[in-house]
Amino acid sequence: MSFKSNSINIVLVETSHPGNIGSVARAMKTMGLSKLSLVNPKDFPSGDANALSGNARDLLDSAKVYPNLKDAIKESTFVYATSARNRSINWPNVSPEEAAKKIIDQSINGKEVSIIFGREDRGLKNEELQLANYHLEIPANPDYPVLNIAMSVQIVTYELYKNANLIEEKEWRDFPEVNSKDLQRLIDHFVETSIDLELIDPDNPSQIISRLKRMFTRLQPDSMEANYLRGFLGAINKRLK
Amino acid sequence: MSFKSNSINIVLVETSHPGNIGSVARAMKTMGLSKLSLVNPKDFPSGDANALSGNARDLLDSAKVYPNLKDAIKESTFVYATSARNRSINWPNVSPEEAAKKIIDQSINGKEVSIIFGREDRGLKNEELQLANYHLEIPANPDYPVLNIAMSVQIVTYELYKNANLIEEKEWRDFPEVNSKDLQRLIDHFVETSIDLELIDPDNPSQIISRLKRMFTRLQPDSMEANYLRGFLGAINKRLK
Repeated sequence: MSFKSNSINIVLVETSHPGNIGSVARAMKTMGLSKLSLVNPKDFPSGDANALSGNARDLLDSAKVYPNLKDAIKESTFVYATSARNRSINWPNVSPEEAAKKIIDQSINGKEVSIIFGREDRGLKNEELQLANYHLEIPANPDYPVLNIAMSVQIVTYELYKNANLIEEKEWRDFPEVNSKDLQRLIDHFVETSIDLELIDPDNPSQIISRLKRMFTRLQPDSMEANYLRGFLGAINKRLK
Repeated sequence: MSFKSNSINIVLVETSHPGNIGSVARAMKTMGLSKLSLVNPKDFPSGDANALSGNARDLLDSAKVYPNLKDAIKESTFVYATSARNRSINWPNVSPEEAAKKIIDQSINGKEVSIIFGREDRGLKNEELQLANYHLEIPANPDYPVLNIAMSVQIVTYELYKNANLIEEKEWRDFPEVNSKDLQRLIDHFVETSIDLELIDPDNPSQIISRLKRMFTRLQPDSMEANYLRGFLGAINKRLK
């Protein structure tokens, strides 16, 4: 048993150094992955990226460039964001090994998965982290947890490759999970309805919107559930008019 | 359980690119290691090594340089050599994870351990491989198993750090999950509101109520989320009156 290489999307957000993109491509290929997405890279295509990609130049040639993160992950059913510890609100979090086991299972079941890696210097912003179902944290020396981005990709993809032969799990869902775009639409609809119901002050939402995002990404509704919830919100909207 | 950082010796043999030495130092430090030995490096000390070491410059400053491999490992009780598959004779071989478990145990018992990494282009020679007690092989894509040397060090040291710090899953919830009774109350409230909104026909609910139960039990809301949802439903109920 193995994962489907083309269903696992490695997403790099606003990478500054093109050499890192090349190193990421090489790291991915050594672990059997091929799908690379770049969100607003500073310099790409680039000779430095090519030089460091070794024989993984094909991954750079087929890499897709997106203007923003939401577009890069919109087809994905499951989204993992690598992160360090400092967050405004705790999120469901997994180790690289736990993530690998989940992702392999999700991939085998035909789902697209995105794994997001942040900027070299500042990682991912809170609103980017909150697009994810899971946060993925690489265990590291607390005195110096500063892994190079390509090193982080190497560890995560190594765990994927290593665990790819160990898993079997039964699918219990009868409808597919919604993709990230539809999930975000559902969350937006819920937040707007909350505002209409005067449960959230749009000028001072405090933590509640983050909490709702966390709740819905954790739920990962299937298409039937999401349709029902959208219908539920729509019925409320109609009555409020 | 933890390893003794100064009892684990990372040995690089005839490294060609000094930048790789710097990347190795950084990789080591992120995983809590500090002892670096260099056998006949082509160019060291070097500005490229310093540049790529990040805040692990101290490892470069304290690195020891040896004219040959035997000298670099002579204090070690256990020696691991990283290798690809092509060997003249099969040797006891271990995965990074198996190696990590052994090395942690050996380190705790006061033994010095060396882990040897070969040249960028040609790896280790047979006579060098045969100095080791174990060969350590990183699982990789058979079509392109060519890991950069610093990536190999990152994976091996990650397994060391990970296995030395096997910590139970971090709790991310900031409020406790609701108990079954409160969950059932929430579900009932949601179903009743759905009926009020004419989304469910109480005389013919079909599968939808089962699906909603499954969705909410899967969500396992915490008390804050459940309170919010109860408030949300309550606000709707008030408007429907």
